Amino acid sequence: MTDIFNAFYAQSGGVTAVINASACGVIETARTCTDKIGTVFAGKNGILGALKEELIDTSLESAQTIAALRYTPGGAFGSCRYRLPDSEESNTLYQRIIAVFKAHNIRYFFYNGGGDSMDTAHKIGLMSERLDYPVTCIGIPKTIDNDLAATDSCPGFGSAAKYIATSVKEAALDVISMQETSTKIFVMEVMGRNAGWLAASAALAMNNKSDAPHILLFPEVDFSRELFLARVEETVENCGYCVIVAAEGIRYADGTFLSASRSTDAFGNVQLGGTAPILARMIKDALGYKYHWCVADYLQRSARHLASTIDVEQAYAVGKSAVEIAIAGQNRVMTSVIREPEETFKWKTGSVPLEMVANVVMKLPDNFIATDGFHITDTCRAYLAPLIQGEDIPPFKDGVPDYALFKGTMAEKKLADFKF
Amino acid sequence: MTDIFNAFYAQSGGVTAVINASACGVIETARTCTDKIGTVFAGKNGILGALKEELIDTSLESAQTIAALRYTPGGAFGSCRYRLPDSEESNTLYQRIIAVFKAHNIRYFFYNGGGDSMDTAHKIGLMSERLDYPVTCIGIPKTIDNDLAATDSCPGFGSAAKYIATSVKEAALDVISMQETSTKIFVMEVMGRNAGWLAASAALAMNNKSDAPHILLFPEVDFSRELFLARVEETVENCGYCVIVAAEGIRYADGTFLSASRSTDAFGNVQLGGTAPILARMIKDALGYKYHWCVADYLQRSARHLASTIDVEQAYAVGKSAVEIAIAGQNRVMTSVIREPEETFKWKTGSVPLEMVANVVMKLPDNFIATDGFHITDTCRAYLAPLIQGEDIPPFKDGVPDYALFKGTMAEKKLADFKF
Repeated sequence: MTDIFNAFYAQSGGVTAVINASACGVIETARTCTDKIGTVFAGKNGILGALKEELIDTSLESAQTIAALRYTPGGAFGSCRYRLPDSEESNTLYQRIIAVFKAHNIRYFFYNGGGDSMDTAHKIGLMSERLDYPVTCIGIPKTIDNDLAATDSCPGFGSAAKYIATSVKEAALDVISMQETSTKIFVMEVMGRNAGWLAASAALAMNNKSDAPHILLFPEVDFSRELFLARVEETVENCGYCVIVAAEGIRYADGTFLSASRSTDAFGNVQLGGTAPILARMIKDALGYKYHWCVADYLQRSARHLASTIDVEQAYAVGKSAVEIAIAGQNRVMTSVIREPEETFKWKTGSVPLEMVANVVMKLPDNFIATDGFHITDTCRAYLAPLIQGEDIPPFKDGVPDYALFKGTMAEKKLADFKF
Repeated sequence: MTDIFNAFYAQSGGVTAVINASACGVIETARTCTDKIGTVFAGKNGILGALKEELIDTSLESAQTIAALRYTPGGAFGSCRYRLPDSEESNTLYQRIIAVFKAHNIRYFFYNGGGDSMDTAHKIGLMSERLDYPVTCIGIPKTIDNDLAATDSCPGFGSAAKYIATSVKEAALDVISMQETSTKIFVMEVMGRNAGWLAASAALAMNNKSDAPHILLFPEVDFSRELFLARVEETVENCGYCVIVAAEGIRYADGTFLSASRSTDAFGNVQLGGTAPILARMIKDALGYKYHWCVADYLQRSARHLASTIDVEQAYAVGKSAVEIAIAGQNRVMTSVIREPEETFKWKTGSVPLEMVANVVMKLPDNFIATDGFHITDTCRAYLAPLIQGEDIPPFKDGVPDYALFKGTMAEKKLADFKF
């Protein structure tokens, strides 16, 4: 019995349509390893749950409730945007986390997040050794932005990509119908502050070269008003309409975000706001075309009803693998997805040192962006296409998806309150 | 042979996820009535197709192509925003339409649109009699806004409603995860310039009274900044977060649209734009909560991947019925949906005089809006719930819906060009 330890699982940063599938993978796998892992505690609101000693006892949940995590979007236990201090040395926050782990016999820490979180997991691991209470720290990748290093893709991205490709395909059919007398321009804004993976995925809507979306705007490419407007005009002349997908993070050559810019509308009013309305207005003012725009925002990262089967499977697998490699003795690594170098798409899980992933942002590589900067290459398409395959449709009830709000029961506190 | 006449079908105004299902109903039914109806011509870009004599010959399309219309969003033949003059008397445009009908032996006119279009169909019918070339004019209801009179619901609405309810349910799970340290407010803007049906449908996301969406804003209710902000604050205090769904057409008591208002942001800059960002900023300025907002725009009316089975069936049925009642001798009527007065939801098609529908906007009745103006009543919920039932999922290929762009072949022109 003495080498059975508890585990702590936490979700970090912006959630996705499939982060709970990773949680499901962790918990279901841990339940098959009762000779090694006792209870899996989940942090209420991510790492804050460890700091506040708010630990959800997942062992009290039925197998059915845990299975439902696989198809429920959002972060079942709560996530947070909370960055621990850069240095863990003698920092009371890191010490507190270890104290809570110790109080609850926790020796496994599974942290489901992005690059920042991998850095945190690494530091908690270091601190645990310094305090002579070694905790196995395993990262589990998650981000719709697909910008983590050392993994073929990030769970969460494939489903967001599928949502974007589907939505732009549908909206384009609408615009095609209306172009003769009304809307000629449609601008869709997608997430991606620093990397253009989501904007790139819109290209998967296309069957033919002339199909929408006609123009993709990436944070990796300096935005030029002149080149952009010329391309819009050319597209409308050739196709009758133009569909544009823009990452929220596009910026001018001087580094100014478009969304932070002051554009002046036809009435001389200064306008601040999202990237999509700014682009739409820019086109209207210069070329006179009638436009519509949309900002999908959270819809794109929570649209579990349109999840990619591959994405759900990978999300589950990186959670499952995290438990397996922890038990096998790996430490301070992140589970990853490895694409097999074969003609047909095959993948497996792997692991990489947390230090390789911490605080790195993977942008679109140059050979994924078309020479003119307005589209993707065939190489990029070949990379993206497998990630949106398959429809993993959740159960529906009364016309809407039958998602369960996870209530959870908190484990009894063993320590005094901690102020921070 | 002499009493076999051709038919003209046209799509009008903003398209929907299921308007092509109505087209499918018209064409498939006409193909079973070869003793009455010859060729079904579809107007290229709606009524413009009649004016320009641009008639798509649907008889050249395979049964398979026509069947695919049932699951393809947008307007397959093109729609238009083009309003014929108010008076048809001695107007050359109406005369031209009749001349084109005559040249192509067309004696049936099926017009698939909203209130304006029913008016147009009515006037074309009158003109055809005046010119002694009587054309049977049948309207087919379509609008995501659900604001047509004399029909239980409008095909297109149910699918948009299902999209909105599903999307807000998913986005709310995201906000719930993030509320502790980040986003507390989510504002979703939906269509509805004059009627709040789509905003009302967001309530179908709820399982319990405390669930999102917490606040619905309708064009039917004067917007009060004070009452709104008080309700937002109260909701955040009680629930920890607040999800708001706002119709694009909400306005102050003096009639000014919020979207046309000038709100000043924290930096003193004047801001113009959609209703959602204006509301979000208003909350931030007054209460300080972190927010996200989305504007679904065309996505909500083209999301065929999330169509309601009932909506698709009704869309098909009102198209089918239009052909059947035309052959049976009805004229200048619109097909409609009639809800049976039974406990379990049942419906059938009916017909109503075009004059009853023309240019009427059906707003949310008073007893559908909660006393405080911020939500719907149980009566409204009972009305809405059946309309989003069932998932009519289109075929997928390579991870995205396999919609076909309808190409079509134009019938040879028989008349000289017409300038207008």
